[in-house]
Amino acid sequence: MAQQNNTIAVIGCGLIGQSWAALFAGYGFDVRAWDPAANWQAGFEASVAAALEQVRVLRRSAHAEGRIVTTDSLDDAVRGAFWIQENAPESVPLKIDLYARIEAGAEPGAILASSTSSLTWSELSRQLRHRDRFITAHPFNPPHLMPLVEVYAADASVRAKAEAFYNGLQRKTVMLSRDAVGHIANRLASALWREAVNIVDQGIADVSAVDAALVHGPGLRWSVVGAHMAYHLGGGAGGIEHYLEHLGPSQERRWASLGNPTLTPELCRRIVDGVMQEAAGRSVAQLQAERDAGLLRALAARPGDAS
Amino acid sequence: MAQQNNTIAVIGCGLIGQSWAALFAGYGFDVRAWDPAANWQAGFEASVAAALEQVRVLRRSAHAEGRIVTTDSLDDAVRGAFWIQENAPESVPLKIDLYARIEAGAEPGAILASSTSSLTWSELSRQLRHRDRFITAHPFNPPHLMPLVEVYAADASVRAKAEAFYNGLQRKTVMLSRDAVGHIANRLASALWREAVNIVDQGIADVSAVDAALVHGPGLRWSVVGAHMAYHLGGGAGGIEHYLEHLGPSQERRWASLGNPTLTPELCRRIVDGVMQEAAGRSVAQLQAERDAGLLRALAARPGDAS
Repeated sequence: MAQQNNTIAVIGCGLIGQSWAALFAGYGFDVRAWDPAANWQAGFEASVAAALEQVRVLRRSAHAEGRIVTTDSLDDAVRGAFWIQENAPESVPLKIDLYARIEAGAEPGAILASSTSSLTWSELSRQLRHRDRFITAHPFNPPHLMPLVEVYAADASVRAKAEAFYNGLQRKTVMLSRDAVGHIANRLASALWREAVNIVDQGIADVSAVDAALVHGPGLRWSVVGAHMAYHLGGGAGGIEHYLEHLGPSQERRWASLGNPTLTPELCRRIVDGVMQEAAGRSVAQLQAERDAGLLRALAARPGDAS
Repeated sequence: MAQQNNTIAVIGCGLIGQSWAALFAGYGFDVRAWDPAANWQAGFEASVAAALEQVRVLRRSAHAEGRIVTTDSLDDAVRGAFWIQENAPESVPLKIDLYARIEAGAEPGAILASSTSSLTWSELSRQLRHRDRFITAHPFNPPHLMPLVEVYAADASVRAKAEAFYNGLQRKTVMLSRDAVGHIANRLASALWREAVNIVDQGIADVSAVDAALVHGPGLRWSVVGAHMAYHLGGGAGGIEHYLEHLGPSQERRWASLGNPTLTPELCRRIVDGVMQEAAGRSVAQLQAERDAGLLRALAARPGDAS
């Protein structure tokens, strides 16, 4: 029997699934979590507990939390769930096969949302019985801290439902007009990284200098205003129109001068060495903890990103 | 007589010069400001006063501040200054001509630092008598709030002096290994904006969706960790080395799929319309004030960016 209930299925419980589970539970939803790996539960539970603690810090005051149940049965996980968040590996055949199994057990009316970062709605929805209830909903890692969720939904009412759902989790839901590889954010990240790699390749600056320039320059500014708006504000009183008229041609020349590096073994070695130098002996786990602490501080300083 | 004193000359007092003047005075330096425009002083003084108030907010406790004197004589401005920060329009002949006049009046030993965003040390230093004491020191706008200063200096001792000088103003000084158009930050910004424009051009998302995705996704993350480091943390325990081995080829394919738009009149119109929609009736001045407030909040949340 289809009914709007309080249960979300989290399908695939790696880094992204763990983080979603913590977010969902932190906002009062019951979670049924499934993963095909052997003995995945212990690691999952520890990671969720740590992430949930961060969600509590961000929300400041106490809220009712949902229960998280793990299961080794996919049918058990999706039964009774009104929302199914899928976080399986980035393989079209694997996901298509998984979706057939999910559709067999899902409630009528349940939304199936894929966290895919690199695959598209068109590729993934091909063999679905209910394409209209399938969406891509790509979070930015880690989802329990990063506000962005990028959504593509073909059906207008499902689109509205998705926007309301993720906004209700205090996410910033951004809607795509059509599906595209890398959605918006990873396309932007990839474009920037290409030039970041080129700057190292060309010997203009080393890895840690590039990262520092980003963190203390454009990254900081883009955490406050977007790229288009930044040029509006850089155009003086005439704004973006003035900017495009006067500096559009010089931007096109700048674009033409940007690099298109090849990740040769030598260049990869320089990047790895540069990152190791920047890490200065800190492990990945330590650096992640520092990143999370920095994100928590940045989010706490934003009006309206947590409640 | 050359002596290390407390006076900085600010040459060119538009948006960037005003902001530098406030920063220098806020950190205790006396400022002598010069601009060739007619009746520039009143607007300059009002802008500096507003920016200085923001510097005070960031520094939290009271500090001794320098005096700011305006002058219509370039000679007066540079006489006695140990540091000369030049913020003239982005024209090689104009700056070369200006430098000849500056060198004629400057103290022996004074450093001449250009805020140029788009010209290079090599182009600008050609006709200088003291190339070794000339550097490019590009701030990210607005300089009194944004920590980044990108420096290129050919001379090792001047390089060390510049790093100490800007770090002393609580800036994050990033050193270039060689000079390049757009230094680091504007190359990265330009690369990202090219894809942001392409996403609008391809109809993947509209201007405000692209900006929102950036602000709540990669922008926020890059305000905490750089692009190279972000892939180190996205690579799991194996870090950047694992990432490059396993996902390097897919990044290269992603790079090949990025766009290379042309700023046609139609596309410019869509960008302008999109920015107007995002601005939702707010003037450039209002939006700048909101940006500054957001930057102040973000900076206050960072450890060690202000003191």
